Amino acid sequence: MTENNNYNHLKEKIIHVDRVFDGKVIQVDHDTVELPNGEQSKREIVYHNGAVCLIAVHEDIMYFVRQYRIAPDEFLLEIPAGKIEKGDFPEASAKRELEEEIGAAADRLELIHEFYVSPGFSNEFVYLYEAKDIKMQTQKLDDDEFLDVAKIPLQNLRQILSDGSVRDSKTIIAIQYVIEKYNL
Amino acid sequence: MTENNNYNHLKEKIIHVDRVFDGKVIQVDHDTVELPNGEQSKREIVYHNGAVCLIAVHEDIMYFVRQYRIAPDEFLLEIPAGKIEKGDFPEASAKRELEEEIGAAADRLELIHEFYVSPGFSNEFVYLYEAKDIKMQTQKLDDDEFLDVAKIPLQNLRQILSDGSVRDSKTIIAIQYVIEKYNL
Repeated sequence: MTENNNYNHLKEKIIHVDRVFDGKVIQVDHDTVELPNGEQSKREIVYHNGAVCLIAVHEDIMYFVRQYRIAPDEFLLEIPAGKIEKGDFPEASAKRELEEEIGAAADRLELIHEFYVSPGFSNEFVYLYEAKDIKMQTQKLDDDEFLDVAKIPLQNLRQILSDGSVRDSKTIIAIQYVIEKYNL
Repeated sequence: MTENNNYNHLKEKIIHVDRVFDGKVIQVDHDTVELPNGEQSKREIVYHNGAVCLIAVHEDIMYFVRQYRIAPDEFLLEIPAGKIEKGDFPEASAKRELEEEIGAAADRLELIHEFYVSPGFSNEFVYLYEAKDIKMQTQKLDDDEFLDVAKIPLQNLRQILSDGSVRDSKTIIAIQYVIEKYNL
């Protein structure tokens, strides 16, 4: 991080690692750190392999998925998304999710934004792509994946953003981008 | 969730709870669930008490903080933010963070968006406010909080959004909102 050398007065150092959970999706550490003032503190850290998500607009329709999310216990409206499998390139993961979740093939992906979603405790990093030259095919969900496709006309995007229908950060970023791009 | 009754064909049920970590910031469960098709699967769930964040614009300057985040191991540019303490109202947490982190008092807060940041495994829910009628005072950081205030002119916001300087989801949402509101 050479561009960040000016901020070393803010840095914490891990001085003891304590792995408390080693799951398939996340690993959780309860570490001891040294603060910039030399004192010690504890940090709870969730490691995650990262995720991809996609803006898919085709014939004045934006494609979303509706699915049950067990952590918040809600049926959320989200853009197509998925975890990056270990060893996979983000772009390959994104093309696969687009095919599986909404049954669309895209010749090209453009990277729009990339971001941490909860940097206070997690290193999960998300790549947001826009799918270009989409061709609609057939949904190919995994056996343990249950979701509905939601097709929303572009002219309704401002409405769903302001009425509280969208309760997911990556989906808000995507809709704000589409609203500006299409001058909605 | 009465408005969601149509989506019950997507619902999972927790059939066994296994708490694997009980921290100060997060609690982690490794639960067994029943899928919509009747089969069983495992879910890794992180519970979090939620957070607040703020858009603070004063005299054509938007206020940010630069801080070291140990999970991603980066010095991130973010809008002012903080956890909601147990028993606190989100708006009270937001006013406190604004005072502590950038030394600003706001007479009014307007709720702009509210969202999950990583609903695939976490229930962390974030309230994004716009601070109104800001008065600048003095920064009052907690003893274990180390951050720099970054004051960015509104006319530079499009630039930092497109050049990769902003790598945090809530901060991207906030900048997109300000760019549209101020017609930048």
